[in-house]
Amino acid sequence: MEVKARAPGKIILAGEHAVVHGSTAVAACIDLYTYVSLRFPSDSDDDDTLKLVLKDMELNFSWSVTRIKATLSHLGSPFPSTPTTCSMEVIKSIAVLVDEQNIPEAKIGLSSGATAFLWLYTSIIGFKPATVVVTSDLPLGAGLGSSAAFCVSLTAALLGSLNSVHLDKNHQGWLTYGESDLDLLNKWAFEGEKIIHGKPSGLDNTVSTYGNIIKFRSGNMTCIKSNMPLKMLITNTKVGRNTRALVAGVSERSMRHPDAMSSVFNAVDSISKELSTIIESPTPDDLSITEKEERLEELMEMNQGLLQCMGVSHSSIETVLRTTLKFKLASKLTGAGGGGCALTLLPTLLSATVVEKVTTELETCGFQCLIAGIGGTGVEVCFGGLS
Amino acid sequence: MEVKARAPGKIILAGEHAVVHGSTAVAACIDLYTYVSLRFPSDSDDDDTLKLVLKDMELNFSWSVTRIKATLSHLGSPFPSTPTTCSMEVIKSIAVLVDEQNIPEAKIGLSSGATAFLWLYTSIIGFKPATVVVTSDLPLGAGLGSSAAFCVSLTAALLGSLNSVHLDKNHQGWLTYGESDLDLLNKWAFEGEKIIHGKPSGLDNTVSTYGNIIKFRSGNMTCIKSNMPLKMLITNTKVGRNTRALVAGVSERSMRHPDAMSSVFNAVDSISKELSTIIESPTPDDLSITEKEERLEELMEMNQGLLQCMGVSHSSIETVLRTTLKFKLASKLTGAGGGGCALTLLPTLLSATVVEKVTTELETCGFQCLIAGIGGTGVEVCFGGLS
Repeated sequence: MEVKARAPGKIILAGEHAVVHGSTAVAACIDLYTYVSLRFPSDSDDDDTLKLVLKDMELNFSWSVTRIKATLSHLGSPFPSTPTTCSMEVIKSIAVLVDEQNIPEAKIGLSSGATAFLWLYTSIIGFKPATVVVTSDLPLGAGLGSSAAFCVSLTAALLGSLNSVHLDKNHQGWLTYGESDLDLLNKWAFEGEKIIHGKPSGLDNTVSTYGNIIKFRSGNMTCIKSNMPLKMLITNTKVGRNTRALVAGVSERSMRHPDAMSSVFNAVDSISKELSTIIESPTPDDLSITEKEERLEELMEMNQGLLQCMGVSHSSIETVLRTTLKFKLASKLTGAGGGGCALTLLPTLLSATVVEKVTTELETCGFQCLIAGIGGTGVEVCFGGLS
Repeated sequence: MEVKARAPGKIILAGEHAVVHGSTAVAACIDLYTYVSLRFPSDSDDDDTLKLVLKDMELNFSWSVTRIKATLSHLGSPFPSTPTTCSMEVIKSIAVLVDEQNIPEAKIGLSSGATAFLWLYTSIIGFKPATVVVTSDLPLGAGLGSSAAFCVSLTAALLGSLNSVHLDKNHQGWLTYGESDLDLLNKWAFEGEKIIHGKPSGLDNTVSTYGNIIKFRSGNMTCIKSNMPLKMLITNTKVGRNTRALVAGVSERSMRHPDAMSSVFNAVDSISKELSTIIESPTPDDLSITEKEERLEELMEMNQGLLQCMGVSHSSIETVLRTTLKFKLASKLTGAGGGGCALTLLPTLLSATVVEKVTTELETCGFQCLIAGIGGTGVEVCFGGLS
């Protein structure tokens, strides 16, 4: 039996950083996915192994199920319907299992992912041999929600294998979960994210689970449906960021210049609200698609100026802005800034030639370019044959 | 008899564009001057000529005083103590005199300056032969207030020649006017600016007349004294701008996104107020010079981000930002944007080597670099010998 699941990555369309100071932000899922395939050995096999294959990274982990059981026996039976936080004690026990895998030094950052894997797997499925293969369209650690997409797709495959979920037909063989199953799935994925990130906001797993576009403010998230096709060029500058330091920098600037910065955060709040209204409003509304795109481009330019005002841009981001501006395309950084990724809106009527030209020029700078549709469906599963 | 006068140019330290929408802005005079030398022929000369020599441009205008008198006789006696607006009718009469000078096509923009010259000269001095020589440190049409510096220095020389003014010793032979003479001078210079610009705000002539730093909001100007040495690198990108179109662009953006833009203007207002407070506060205050400079740099970076948010930056300005940032120097555009000039704060402790390096690199881009002290004295005159 094979269950496959895929869960999308996310981008921040507007409001990063300002959201920490009470502004509205808007995130959206992108049609770039992490795929998880879960396969249980047939009854005839006499296998005792749980395998995790990170195919893109050519990494194979394998544990003896007996060994896992011995280490985590105090967990008892699996408890798929009760998402539970992994205690520090259990994390330590799992860490021992992960450490035995001798992860190469350069990929040591993956060990927390392997820990989350073992926690989700044993909590939902128990102690059972299987092979889990992971592939992804998403670059790691670039702010596109790759770890959440991993946790969500893994949880989806695990819950899907239990046959206790309600599924709706979707497209091309992919099935979507019912609302209450999505809620359960999202909670489990959040527990996985906590193991990987410590104190995640829960935004990434929520976007990856429910898809669409999510407006969030002070911890409250509202799902909104896009009423326009929206395509973005995502440029990964590959410049590593220290998110914590960037967030702290904005807070310090805000303490030094409270009046100015509070107006800046208000401006971002207005931009996020306007942007989500435009995306949500029926097309053709009073505005045509092209007019909507022009409004969004202007809002992106404005948001980028405000991010520069907060001091979180970076010369690599400026290079993307400059390059795309040559083709009259609007861009902004997305996520923490200080490097990371930039978004460029690709208008509906933009010719493929221009897209190719701008992509080539950005790649010449050493950047990675991805093209993504914005605001589609969230996590999906399928059973058997689909490859 | 020779009277010389010099009047400084200006920069906008903070608040350009936002000031149109009710925010506070801060302007300052710079120690780059326009110089006017006024010489009357000795009694032995039998000269009937009024000469205007624009030395930097190698342009010479000369009019027969008899001819001027015939054209403008209805003006009657000069009226130096009563600044008067030049009527459209008189502008037309003077235009005839200017047109006769056959100004080369490329320099036709100077004809309004020549018109302002004839109006100020005949109104203050009457119909008398003289030679007026003008030189300037200021690039023309770059937003550094060159036309106001011309009107102010010309008026200062004209009023100075009447011997009816009160002068105070200043430094190196330069003398300053008393307060009421400055008020008179400023009004006349404003009348000249009107001929050149149509509807000037009066800011440029006011800064050039009174010097120091001027905080302005909704047409109200407050003179503040700088309490710290402040030096700026002014980079003239030489990219021509259409100020009217840029101002209109911000207004249109403001109509499309009223909430966001009103917060942006509020942020700029806070920045201008904070900036002027820092410059005005005694040093050493609670902040050292270096700390003050760091605050100013941060405010400049923030203001620049907000200007980008308004959509008035330009790729040439971004080039200046990028280049100066390599040397850890903060910059912002100054004035209308869309090209024009950028300011870079040169901290007190910055080595001459770094200044030289950054200047060289900017000049390699085809830009003109000027270094200016900020917030000094306004218009000054001297008599006789000084060269």
